[in-house]
Amino acid sequence: MRLGMRERAMSGTADQFDSEKARMLRFAERMIEERGDAVSRSALAGYAGVPRPRIEAMFADDDELFDAVVAGWFGDHVTIMEEVLASDLPPNRKMFEFFARRFRLQRERFRANPAAFKAYCELGAAHFERVRSYVDLADHYLCELIAQAQAEGAFEGLAIDRALSLINQMVLPYTMADVLTYMDERLSEEKLGQIVDTLFAGLSAADRGARGLSGLRAA
Amino acid sequence: MRLGMRERAMSGTADQFDSEKARMLRFAERMIEERGDAVSRSALAGYAGVPRPRIEAMFADDDELFDAVVAGWFGDHVTIMEEVLASDLPPNRKMFEFFARRFRLQRERFRANPAAFKAYCELGAAHFERVRSYVDLADHYLCELIAQAQAEGAFEGLAIDRALSLINQMVLPYTMADVLTYMDERLSEEKLGQIVDTLFAGLSAADRGARGLSGLRAA
Repeated sequence: MRLGMRERAMSGTADQFDSEKARMLRFAERMIEERGDAVSRSALAGYAGVPRPRIEAMFADDDELFDAVVAGWFGDHVTIMEEVLASDLPPNRKMFEFFARRFRLQRERFRANPAAFKAYCELGAAHFERVRSYVDLADHYLCELIAQAQAEGAFEGLAIDRALSLINQMVLPYTMADVLTYMDERLSEEKLGQIVDTLFAGLSAADRGARGLSGLRAA
Repeated sequence: MRLGMRERAMSGTADQFDSEKARMLRFAERMIEERGDAVSRSALAGYAGVPRPRIEAMFADDDELFDAVVAGWFGDHVTIMEEVLASDLPPNRKMFEFFARRFRLQRERFRANPAAFKAYCELGAAHFERVRSYVDLADHYLCELIAQAQAEGAFEGLAIDRALSLINQMVLPYTMADVLTYMDERLSEEKLGQIVDTLFAGLSAADRGARGLSGLRAA
């Protein structure tokens, strides 16, 4: 936290400062949900009825405010991924939980407030560079899961990066938040389980001929 | 075509009328690409510099104009699906071509004009009820492919509707047009081939345990 002696003195104790900051973040989230757009520090000060210098002591610039909102959104995702990675489930169970728990969290958020959820989806798409580190972290953990699965014979012969890309594509409806906004009723943990079963039973480097030798000119 | 004697007389021969209509559709497409929004008959008349009654003789109402634009977009998709269904390729090759040819068409359109492509994606999402019949037709043809594949031992034990839903989810990045707008460089015919291979090797009704008995509370 960027907090000098002077700001700390202005703000009371560090605990008070942190809880005030958390309260300001709730205001920022509410603004995003209402307006569907990113929030500046000055707009937040006006909305929350707080002096601008006080907001500026909490967030060094508008990007830091945005990043704090993003961190609030993805914090639970990171916790879920770390818990699943630390568990001693077999690889197929682990991969299912890795996707299913985050899917369930997203679905709860979507169903609790579809309009706010859409606002966050659009904001994340428009500012993807500030979300990327969470996507990269998820890829990092998924690579660990793939390595564990390969150690037990799954995904035979596939480079980890290739398996990563193919798995990400095949489970995309369960990770890409905005898919919920148009096909919530067709997504389920049961289907996700069948997809993970399919991956473990069928995904390998073996060319089984679907693509054919003659490419798109064949039929 | 809704075309009375009087309109036909006004418009010259039916051939002239049809080519004029096709020309007006090009104008409508250009308007959509420029504005990113649906087009009314009166706006089209103004844009094309044509008397409004002339446009009204071609399109009974704004919905009919919109449907004609949608038909122009999906016409090639329908041709592709029918050609693939009529071919005598084995089921895995057929399913690959079924998805790959339409993916390639979408990708060509996207790369030729990304902004116009995005405008069509947004328009299709906003007026999904007018696109639904094409989605339903694709599902209908995919069910035929699934039945052919099951006759040769694939997707064992799965109800056709269930296989349809799971396959649609696992190939979603290659059918949902707007995925191209954010991950074009990660999609390829080669990966699609590996996904179809994975489906044919691994998708069945067998519960292989990814979901576990204890659901999401397990890890």
